Amino acid sequence: MKIVVIQGPNINMLGLREVGIYGAMKMEEIHEQMKIAASQSNAELEFFQSNFEGELIDKIQECLGTADGIIINPAAYTHTSVAIRDAIAAVSLPTIEVHISNVYRREEFRQKSLISPVCSGTIVGFGPFGYHLALMGILQICDQIEKLKAAQKQK
Amino acid sequence: MKIVVIQGPNINMLGLREVGIYGAMKMEEIHEQMKIAASQSNAELEFFQSNFEGELIDKIQECLGTADGIIINPAAYTHTSVAIRDAIAAVSLPTIEVHISNVYRREEFRQKSLISPVCSGTIVGFGPFGYHLALMGILQICDQIEKLKAAQKQK
Amino acid sequence: MKIVVIQGPNINMLGLREVGIYGAMKMEEIHEQMKIAASQSNAELEFFQSNFEGELIDKIQECLGTADGIIINPAAYTHTSVAIRDAIAAVSLPTIEVHISNVYRREEFRQKSLISPVCSGTIVGFGPFGYHLALMGILQICDQIEKLKAAQKQK
Amino acid sequence: MKIVVIQGPNINMLGLREVGIYGAMKMEEIHEQMKIAASQSNAELEFFQSNFEGELIDKIQECLGTADGIIINPAAYTHTSVAIRDAIAAVSLPTIEVHISNVYRREEFRQKSLISPVCSGTIVGFGPFGYHLALMGILQICDQIEKLKAAQKQK
Amino acid sequence: MKIVVIQGPNINMLGLREVGIYGAMKMEEIHEQMKIAASQSNAELEFFQSNFEGELIDKIQECLGTADGIIINPAAYTHTSVAIRDAIAAVSLPTIEVHISNVYRREEFRQKSLISPVCSGTIVGFGPFGYHLALMGILQICDQIEKLKAAQKQK
Amino acid sequence: MKIVVIQGPNINMLGLREVGIYGAMKMEEIHEQMKIAASQSNAELEFFQSNFEGELIDKIQECLGTADGIIINPAAYTHTSVAIRDAIAAVSLPTIEVHISNVYRREEFRQKSLISPVCSGTIVGFGPFGYHLALMGILQICDQIEKLKAAQKQK
Amino acid sequence: MKIVVIQGPNINMLGLREVGIYGAMKMEEIHEQMKIAASQSNAELEFFQSNFEGELIDKIQECLGTADGIIINPAAYTHTSVAIRDAIAAVSLPTIEVHISNVYRREEFRQKSLISPVCSGTIVGFGPFGYHLALMGILQICDQIEKLKAAQKQK
Amino acid sequence: MKIVVIQGPNINMLGLREVGIYGAMKMEEIHEQMKIAASQSNAELEFFQSNFEGELIDKIQECLGTADGIIINPAAYTHTSVAIRDAIAAVSLPTIEVHISNVYRREEFRQKSLISPVCSGTIVGFGPFGYHLALMGILQICDQIEKLKAAQKQK
Amino acid sequence: MKIVVIQGPNINMLGLREVGIYGAMKMEEIHEQMKIAASQSNAELEFFQSNFEGELIDKIQECLGTADGIIINPAAYTHTSVAIRDAIAAVSLPTIEVHISNVYRREEFRQKSLISPVCSGTIVGFGPFGYHLALMGILQICDQIEKLKAAQKQK
Amino acid sequence: MKIVVIQGPNINMLGLREVGIYGAMKMEEIHEQMKIAASQSNAELEFFQSNFEGELIDKIQECLGTADGIIINPAAYTHTSVAIRDAIAAVSLPTIEVHISNVYRREEFRQKSLISPVCSGTIVGFGPFGYHLALMGILQICDQIEKLKAAQKQK
Amino acid sequence: MKIVVIQGPNINMLGLREVGIYGAMKMEEIHEQMKIAASQSNAELEFFQSNFEGELIDKIQECLGTADGIIINPAAYTHTSVAIRDAIAAVSLPTIEVHISNVYRREEFRQKSLISPVCSGTIVGFGPFGYHLALMGILQICDQIEKLKAAQKQK
Amino acid sequence: MKIVVIQGPNINMLGLREVGIYGAMKMEEIHEQMKIAASQSNAELEFFQSNFEGELIDKIQECLGTADGIIINPAAYTHTSVAIRDAIAAVSLPTIEVHISNVYRREEFRQKSLISPVCSGTIVGFGPFGYHLALMGILQICDQIEKLKAAQKQK
Repeated sequence: MKIVVIQGPNINMLGLREVGIYGAMKMEEIHEQMKIAASQSNAELEFFQSNFEGELIDKIQECLGTADGIIINPAAYTHTSVAIRDAIAAVSLPTIEVHISNVYRREEFRQKSLISPVCSGTIVGFGPFGYHLALMGILQICDQIEKLKAAQKQK
Repeated sequence: MKIVVIQGPNINMLGLREVGIYGAMKMEEIHEQMKIAASQSNAELEFFQSNFEGELIDKIQECLGTADGIIINPAAYTHTSVAIRDAIAAVSLPTIEVHISNVYRREEFRQKSLISPVCSGTIVGFGPFGYHLALMGILQICDQIEKLKAAQKQK
Repeated sequence: MKIVVIQGPNINMLGLREVGIYGAMKMEEIHEQMKIAASQSNAELEFFQSNFEGELIDKIQECLGTADGIIINPAAYTHTSVAIRDAIAAVSLPTIEVHISNVYRREEFRQKSLISPVCSGTIVGFGPFGYHLALMGILQICDQIEKLKAAQKQK
Repeated sequence: MKIVVIQGPNINMLGLREVGIYGAMKMEEIHEQMKIAASQSNAELEFFQSNFEGELIDKIQECLGTADGIIINPAAYTHTSVAIRDAIAAVSLPTIEVHISNVYRREEFRQKSLISPVCSGTIVGFGPFGYHLALMGILQICDQIEKLKAAQKQK
Repeated sequence: MKIVVIQGPNINMLGLREVGIYGAMKMEEIHEQMKIAASQSNAELEFFQSNFEGELIDKIQECLGTADGIIINPAAYTHTSVAIRDAIAAVSLPTIEVHISNVYRREEFRQKSLISPVCSGTIVGFGPFGYHLALMGILQICDQIEKLKAAQKQK
Repeated sequence: MKIVVIQGPNINMLGLREVGIYGAMKMEEIHEQMKIAASQSNAELEFFQSNFEGELIDKIQECLGTADGIIINPAAYTHTSVAIRDAIAAVSLPTIEVHISNVYRREEFRQKSLISPVCSGTIVGFGPFGYHLALMGILQICDQIEKLKAAQKQK
Repeated sequence: MKIVVIQGPNINMLGLREVGIYGAMKMEEIHEQMKIAASQSNAELEFFQSNFEGELIDKIQECLGTADGIIINPAAYTHTSVAIRDAIAAVSLPTIEVHISNVYRREEFRQKSLISPVCSGTIVGFGPFGYHLALMGILQICDQIEKLKAAQKQK
Repeated sequence: MKIVVIQGPNINMLGLREVGIYGAMKMEEIHEQMKIAASQSNAELEFFQSNFEGELIDKIQECLGTADGIIINPAAYTHTSVAIRDAIAAVSLPTIEVHISNVYRREEFRQKSLISPVCSGTIVGFGPFGYHLALMGILQICDQIEKLKAAQKQK
Repeated sequence: MKIVVIQGPNINMLGLREVGIYGAMKMEEIHEQMKIAASQSNAELEFFQSNFEGELIDKIQECLGTADGIIINPAAYTHTSVAIRDAIAAVSLPTIEVHISNVYRREEFRQKSLISPVCSGTIVGFGPFGYHLALMGILQICDQIEKLKAAQKQK
Repeated sequence: MKIVVIQGPNINMLGLREVGIYGAMKMEEIHEQMKIAASQSNAELEFFQSNFEGELIDKIQECLGTADGIIINPAAYTHTSVAIRDAIAAVSLPTIEVHISNVYRREEFRQKSLISPVCSGTIVGFGPFGYHLALMGILQICDQIEKLKAAQKQK
Repeated sequence: MKIVVIQGPNINMLGLREVGIYGAMKMEEIHEQMKIAASQSNAELEFFQSNFEGELIDKIQECLGTADGIIINPAAYTHTSVAIRDAIAAVSLPTIEVHISNVYRREEFRQKSLISPVCSGTIVGFGPFGYHLALMGILQICDQIEKLKAAQKQK
Repeated sequence: MKIVVIQGPNINMLGLREVGIYGAMKMEEIHEQMKIAASQSNAELEFFQSNFEGELIDKIQECLGTADGIIINPAAYTHTSVAIRDAIAAVSLPTIEVHISNVYRREEFRQKSLISPVCSGTIVGFGPFGYHLALMGILQICDQIEKLKAAQKQK
């Protein structure tokens, strides 16, 4: 099972600045922890970060046919990118949206996600641990799909 | 460690009707699964469901001093109850908000949660499995608080 | 045929105060008139009034499997209760919404009903006679459903 | 007693198209059923349909002095015609507004009626049977007015 | 000099109903008074009333080449008719908008005029006397245009 | 009969600048023309201009008991001064609001008048001639009041 | 003279939590202070707290015929309960609304009170002392009503 | 193949006035050009213009059973007529909406089309040539429908 | 202790006009009653009324260093004056806002106070008695501050 | 004549996914059809697709001096990109906006185009055939410009 | 060259209070620094502060014919004064708007400037140094105008 | 001292097109002038322009640890890019926002800057000279920071 973890703009700054809001853990450390957790199941992880809306869309499109699920933190593009939304809808893979901080306590314009309606599920406010929950969530969803397919084949 | 699971209005109808939206699993079955998961850690669970806003507030207030964390699905009250929000803020325990369906795909008035800003984290759209993720999430948060307290004591 | 008539908050004050807006007839008198009208058909009526949102939801849930239709005047909860809306949607029985006064002439916040979209029909502004019309309306709907079921059985 | 039934734009298409939304009954059939119902009381009915806002206003004005009440389905003009509203207010006869489908489940712009605030009552979502309920409603209102006038004369 | 006085929907009901808001004077009496006032200058008046938006537009279009100015009370169409606005803009004759009652004290939707921005001037709240002021106003405007044309010819 | 003409902020700049919008006539010239017109009736005129909201309020308050009517061009304060509105409401004399240019063609914030709802009538877009129309309008209103009072005395 | 003091949801948590916002005084201590103040006049006080909207409505209805005035802190229901508003309007007793903290400095949704328009007066931001002011305010209002009734009797 | 070209209010003024916005070509000239283009395919054209909302609705209803497609420029009614929208939805023929000028550069209220959601396609801003594009567009759509029907028959 | 009572625009008209809304008591009479009440404590009162926003700001600024607290009825400026708000914030003395009538029952634009967020407390709807309550309220606040300062000195 | 066809984000997914909304034709097939149509006139076509907002802007800027016109489907950027709008305005070449599906039937946020006001024309809802219409439209516009230039040279 | 520096309400309180927001420098000290800077060019400065909207308008009007440019900090009037906006537009001198603090981080109502659209330029958030930048900015603008005039004279 | 000047989308078109709005000076010429001005202080300048949101974010992130301040003209991204805002907040260097034209006179959507709240200061409407003012502004800010640091070291 292949899961692609896509990190949006400024996530590469995690742990370097604004530690009060986002915590002291770096993006790479989060990815290391996810790898350890994934190794316990049959999941393979790929990581990708970009500040470019276009690169994020390219990556999402690439997942079509090569991956089983997506974990995405669209960061600032959550609130402005119809194009990322359309890309997720176009590939229609199981997709989990993660936000590190509790965006509902922040500026008004951060309250509305263009991405949530096209995702399977959304996880908000758990800090780095949110990625762990997302991983477990998507594995469970992929597992169910597998079982469904197997059941359909038997018929 | 004691976690109280509080279920809002109409959650007791789960699995009986509108199976297309909310799935076929009954509330009691979800609770059974949570108990099994909790038994693997040192967590004790208490379950409570009510259609009364007032009973939900009473229950939240009761948690003060008797519980370590709250998992709440405020259901319809998510969008209308300032009073439940104030109760959660007043007891200020670690609190996780769960929604079974992806509310962001539904009516406009279901897009705004009054509860999210006073919760530690929010989990949306994973079906019954969302409660499992919430349990893991709150145990991790409680764990961190324990460690913090222990560290402070040593000093 | 069993129809449950559910009266929302402050309807028990009918005829005691604000006679200029709501008329001089008491709730009990309305119910008496409905009984007389129902006795002419094979309809059995049950009456319930509460100022508690939770009790109204409990009652609606109870109707599932025990009643054939609901006549409801949600009164003030019309404009604020997503929970009553969800309860009506969950039991999905034929439901008629009644308002005694012409709410469209009153405050802005009374113009929007959260309940109407999940009801079969809505009757507004006829005073106490609105309940009579609602009774005739729901009997006609239940009648049609009966006929449909009978026709399906014959096949 | 003379009641004028005024049908707004596109009501003449009933039963020809969009049967899924509006049902299979034609406007003329509805009118026939109303005549039968009216014949049981002393009510005389007149029917009028137009796609012209101006003709509907002319007709409403004509009712002044020649009719005792109006049943109107303003259809699409419900949401746009201040002029029909002003005409109803100007003649100030008992007027019942009818909508065949449950407009509250449809587009946002169909949720607001400019006509309701100047009507005696509104009936929504009962299909063709809504006209029957409207007829009973207006006859009851006219009856009350008659009695009031008789009582005043006796004094 | 030819001035066309165009009266919108329900103005023909003036003095018959709602005397409290619009006064007791009939439309015909207002027209008589305007004729007397016009006879003192070289102005010829034509009067037109219709409840049809289309007839009002036809009339406005007719004025092109046959009249020197328009006095219009668009009544309810003031707030809804982009088409009358476009007609006035298309003929671009001097046009005065009149409202008998003070619309700024009435319902919210009567506060916005689609017609005012394409008129030369607007007169609101003077009762029937507003038409007299409008007549004087348009004669003054036409007079100025005449003088301007005469001055241009001399050059 | 005493009429006070109150000119709001920047009206004293008329004819000096922005001639394209407001015309070339100076405020003093408008006042001269009004005096000539007033001399034909028994009206006495007083003129007052200020850039101070407070002075305009003082002046309006002064009119109570000393004047029969007010003609006011509140200029920029039209859209922002609740205090001038309250002053006009407090003295409750016949008051006419005048605007030289057609404010409905200008910025959005100039479309809403706080003053109109408390005035007898409003005249917009006639240039300096609007003051002449206002004078005729207020004289007619004062005249009617006089006649009414005389009629009441005779009784 | 009998005054009922009605405390809304979470007021029973006063002094236990969020001391920074609401102060350190407990609800019972506030009530004690009010009793002392009331003992100086002929006022009898009854206290009631509930987290249930329905119980608050029941209590308000009970006051009809048994109390002379109401002091209410609707807390979170201030912003959401049309039903409490309707109950206060229905009993139409002198009613004072109290808020402990300055709600105008807090979240946007706390700025709008559904309750204020049906109350005699509102007191905001004085901390526990606000109840004292409310008591003095309602005693003065009840006093005036008494005097008025006495005066009317004499006639 | 029969196509009806329906022109809304004031389109008959094309080329006579406001040439700067709408161009110098008259409506009749546009129709002539369309005829020439249609003669190259097997399409028959019928032309209809009216300033009456009701006549436009009548015409659209007439198309049911007598025409294969509609080209409509609803002009000002684009933004206000729910009734024309309902008529187009009721006949459900292939319908193309045309606007001569680029409405998106004009007043705010011209930005919203009530008609577009019920049309097959919309063409905006090409001047008179837009009708030519609409003709080609509708012929292509009708052609596809023909082929689909033929294919279905063969089966 | 020195308290300055600042009265906004048109308060000087109290008791002269609009007695139905504001009551028959004159501003001077209110001030007399306040003096009597103040004489029972050690409070000295100064009164100031102005229709000028600027004079009110000057007065508020003057209080800095010369007064212990402010009672202000900003009247119409409540809803429009950011400058008075800034002045109150700048001097940061204990300040009580008073409104004589229940502004929450009046026009929409009177529902929003720019002043409340920078005041200690707000009293609305008690008529002239509201000033008495404000006086008691500010004396209690000043008293608490005194005690606090005394306590700090002792340390 | 050189026309550049610029395709926005996710258009490269056409025919691969969401066939129900966008149809089964691939982007490359559309381009092939356009080439065939262009070969009948003297037009040369260049095609460009990108998921990057910046690359689309670069491409538009490149057109300045090298192309005669642009056909653009900005896809998701239609609703969010002020920068593409500014680029089109900056090069000010004839530009046609194309949308494959009828965006007016979809989500609220897809109803507003930032791009339309700076384009010559807009074509919506014709499926792949919309590109054909756009090509004919832009060729006609370029043709007119050519003729205009030629005419100006002759002078 | 003569530049008038106009300071709005409460600017005279600078450095006395709220030092955290506005800094510790007094208004007079800012003016001293500006004088020093101006002495290096041929600019003469005049300073004016008022809490009165009317005095600020009077001052702006005075500048017509006596000054070459205006530097204005309208403070709180920035967001409410259409009258100051009109005054600046009326004199149409080069005008620079200055704000000391970053208003974009403050309350919602401080985000909208009525003044900016009629100014040459706006400088926000630089503290007292903003006046220095404004001075350099206006001198540069005046300089350009001088050169333009000189160049025009030579022709 | 190192300052990075970051130019957003389409700024590279300056002086080539739309000279009426943005002036005739090219971006490179502006940069040359800035270099000359910078050479007079100890400031080193780096210039960067991109039409890619992602590249602008990359550049801003690069400044962390390598530059002392940023001057940015985000152009069209000002109004849409939460991601650039987050990048500026993340590096938290002194940042000045510059706009060449007076954006407050342009389209509604250009009135709101997402960037301003995270910048030190904003300069709008001075044309190319705005960059000069921004340079002086940022040098002054950096200077103050230097002094502060030096003072802290001495302690």
